[in-house]
Amino acid sequence: MASPDRPQQPDARRTAAAAAAAAGEDQQLEAATQGGPPALLPPTERFAARTAGMTASEIRALFAVASRPEVVSLAGGMPNLAALPLQSLAAEVADLVGTDGTAALQYGSAQGVPQLREQICDVMREEGIEGDPNDVVVTVGSQMALDLLTRIFVDPDDVVLAEGPSYVGALGSFAAYQARVVHVAMDEHGLVPDLLHEALESLARQGTTPKFLYTIPNFHNPAGATLAVQRRPQILELCRRYGVMVIEDNPYGLLGFSGEAYPALRSYDPDVIYLGSFSKTFASGLRVGWALVPPLVRDRLVLAAESATLCPPTFTQMMVSRYLSHHDWRSQVKTFSENYRERRDAMLTALETYLPEGCSWNVPDGGFFVWLTVPEGVDTKAMLPRAVTARVAYASGTGFYADGFGSRQLRLSFCFPTPERITEGVRRLAAVLEAELDVVRTFGTAARSELPRGPQTPSPDTT
Amino acid sequence: MASPDRPQQPDARRTAAAAAAAAGEDQQLEAATQGGPPALLPPTERFAARTAGMTASEIRALFAVASRPEVVSLAGGMPNLAALPLQSLAAEVADLVGTDGTAALQYGSAQGVPQLREQICDVMREEGIEGDPNDVVVTVGSQMALDLLTRIFVDPDDVVLAEGPSYVGALGSFAAYQARVVHVAMDEHGLVPDLLHEALESLARQGTTPKFLYTIPNFHNPAGATLAVQRRPQILELCRRYGVMVIEDNPYGLLGFSGEAYPALRSYDPDVIYLGSFSKTFASGLRVGWALVPPLVRDRLVLAAESATLCPPTFTQMMVSRYLSHHDWRSQVKTFSENYRERRDAMLTALETYLPEGCSWNVPDGGFFVWLTVPEGVDTKAMLPRAVTARVAYASGTGFYADGFGSRQLRLSFCFPTPERITEGVRRLAAVLEAELDVVRTFGTAARSELPRGPQTPSPDTT
Repeated sequence: MASPDRPQQPDARRTAAAAAAAAGEDQQLEAATQGGPPALLPPTERFAARTAGMTASEIRALFAVASRPEVVSLAGGMPNLAALPLQSLAAEVADLVGTDGTAALQYGSAQGVPQLREQICDVMREEGIEGDPNDVVVTVGSQMALDLLTRIFVDPDDVVLAEGPSYVGALGSFAAYQARVVHVAMDEHGLVPDLLHEALESLARQGTTPKFLYTIPNFHNPAGATLAVQRRPQILELCRRYGVMVIEDNPYGLLGFSGEAYPALRSYDPDVIYLGSFSKTFASGLRVGWALVPPLVRDRLVLAAESATLCPPTFTQMMVSRYLSHHDWRSQVKTFSENYRERRDAMLTALETYLPEGCSWNVPDGGFFVWLTVPEGVDTKAMLPRAVTARVAYASGTGFYADGFGSRQLRLSFCFPTPERITEGVRRLAAVLEAELDVVRTFGTAARSELPRGPQTPSPDTT
Repeated sequence: MASPDRPQQPDARRTAAAAAAAAGEDQQLEAATQGGPPALLPPTERFAARTAGMTASEIRALFAVASRPEVVSLAGGMPNLAALPLQSLAAEVADLVGTDGTAALQYGSAQGVPQLREQICDVMREEGIEGDPNDVVVTVGSQMALDLLTRIFVDPDDVVLAEGPSYVGALGSFAAYQARVVHVAMDEHGLVPDLLHEALESLARQGTTPKFLYTIPNFHNPAGATLAVQRRPQILELCRRYGVMVIEDNPYGLLGFSGEAYPALRSYDPDVIYLGSFSKTFASGLRVGWALVPPLVRDRLVLAAESATLCPPTFTQMMVSRYLSHHDWRSQVKTFSENYRERRDAMLTALETYLPEGCSWNVPDGGFFVWLTVPEGVDTKAMLPRAVTARVAYASGTGFYADGFGSRQLRLSFCFPTPERITEGVRRLAAVLEAELDVVRTFGTAARSELPRGPQTPSPDTT
């Protein structure tokens, strides 16, 4: 039903532009940068400076290939949703539309649905947090909260501290705002206070105060380690002394295999900025996460959220709110945890059974991930295409560092595949590793690893 | 179930910080900027420079007061969802969860659900656009697309062209990335090509090339005007000549009262960046919008989207996709339009019946808004509290300008209240205006308007 007075003959310029578009990016670039008919499309140098830091994550590039059914993907972080009570959820969401549809389908506030913000405070209480619903900002996954906090705090070249390795999505947001990431190493008990102290001190000597420490204390992504409870006040004390904010990202906290929750950093100090999510404890496809922030930060965060999306989807927020009200979400989280524990055990057994000497890995007591260090001479990024050819996928370690480290590490996810698939995947990975080691041995270029084989937690910074 | 080895006694610092938090923002600021116990919370000067431009929009400040039931709100832009077939939608969404729940509740791609991207191309065809699903990026409302396009194109102090007045949400994103907005005036036929030419020429003389022109060609928010079809190729030609990209924002395009769709700017040139949304044609609370962009822009936009939210909610995308597949969405859009036309007519009749001399307004042929110019001497922002006291709310004009203009304008929305409420609201507004004019007349400070009273389209830049 296009208007009749629309030009019947596309003009020459339109044809040219259409041809350029059809011809694809390179030709367009040419058309835009060189002569020829003027085009609306800008030459690439007209992109904002910040786009220089935006590069496709290795993980993302990986998802395409790894999603073939014959490939066992130990790469993704997808929760196992088969454990959800879909039929009762179907009835719940139908009732939401039928009885409350005009509210659920309408715009809402930029800060989020008030009732959900109260329920979020109940969820956080599980980890010792006393929060005020007025200080909760609901976001489109906690990724959005992290991105917006970076937006309101980070100027180009500001320093951000993060564990080494760190969450790839966080590194993406830090890069998008041109932050300089300084990694602090972990050991089997998580972030090492002495190393944090060293980093803070050496930055202070350069006259640099980091904008914040970004940390995942529980069941770390990708390292699998958990911050020892006695280290938690020590880390906060160091950050206070050096005037560095703390952003605590805790999507896995309730998915511990001991059934015990660790006290959140936020439970020790109300100035800690806390990020939570329903992606792992309920459903990732609803994209409901949140930030609990001090009032001083809240107002700016809400303004940033408003310009980012106007408001988070009312519908998915009300779905989560009804789920929390009408379902036994605590026992659902327990079901998820038992489910993941079983898969972790299958992975650990397979690693011990199949992996060659010189490999070492940690034993996570919650979450989704095992962090594996391979023998010297093996490059996990270079090995990845051969692994996918052998029908197993993983996330290579360099994607989790801003500084190119991690070539001897890789992340294995046990959250999504069945125990049988996990076992088969690790068997395939072991064969690929053996082949790589044959090459290393043949050309004798690399020294063998000093690490004894077997389950232990290497420092992710093991070289 | 907090861990037992959590410190039983909160330490002094925690108490101090808690007290500071309880004491509120000012005290926190003090604690953070002056001596006293070190706190994690930063002094405000540690916020990013870009936060200086983030201020609460007048519209947002307004929603709180205007949401009282006794107040007739002519301020908001909420679609009238009562017209939706809620019972069949309830069955649809229940089936989505019951039969496809593990996909609908799971993470998806950052670019959006493939089937929905194909259906979006069908929707755009209604306005003469031939798009490729591979060039569609689904976002959390088109607000997110606009925010991310600003992120990838705008460096601080870059110039962005926008109509005067312009959409308040766009001005918010431009401010968040420190763009300089240059307004170009409209008349009753929308953006004026000669004035755009003048603006481009004077910027060129300063050696400035704007990054893009942001324009809402159809049923403009807030001005209600529609860009004349013969002006469309003229505007594109000017932008090509000066090397300025065009971002076309078209949330209302299918909501015309003539039943006729206008050809999108994108239908003349595939390099135009097009923004669309289901917020007005289906349901705003699902927050499903999109951008159609050239491949050169697409890859960066997808990377930016990934760092912003990882992916848009799979669930709401699949809801929209099923709605488009299984419901007669075209006749639903027609129902919405007839509904809004009836409300527009009620508003126009009330304006003619009640408004005092010296007021003038436009006659929108689609969309949600009437733009009203009041007599000289009346300040619409200053009048707003008195209007709300008189139980009617509107959006004052200055919120729609980056340069403080608009004190004699205001936006009236006819989308949400019933025709009866609209009539009553305009009656109340007229009484408030009469009272303001009494003051003006008594103190005789301001000259009377030169404009004849009645329906006509004043240039929003009428002084």
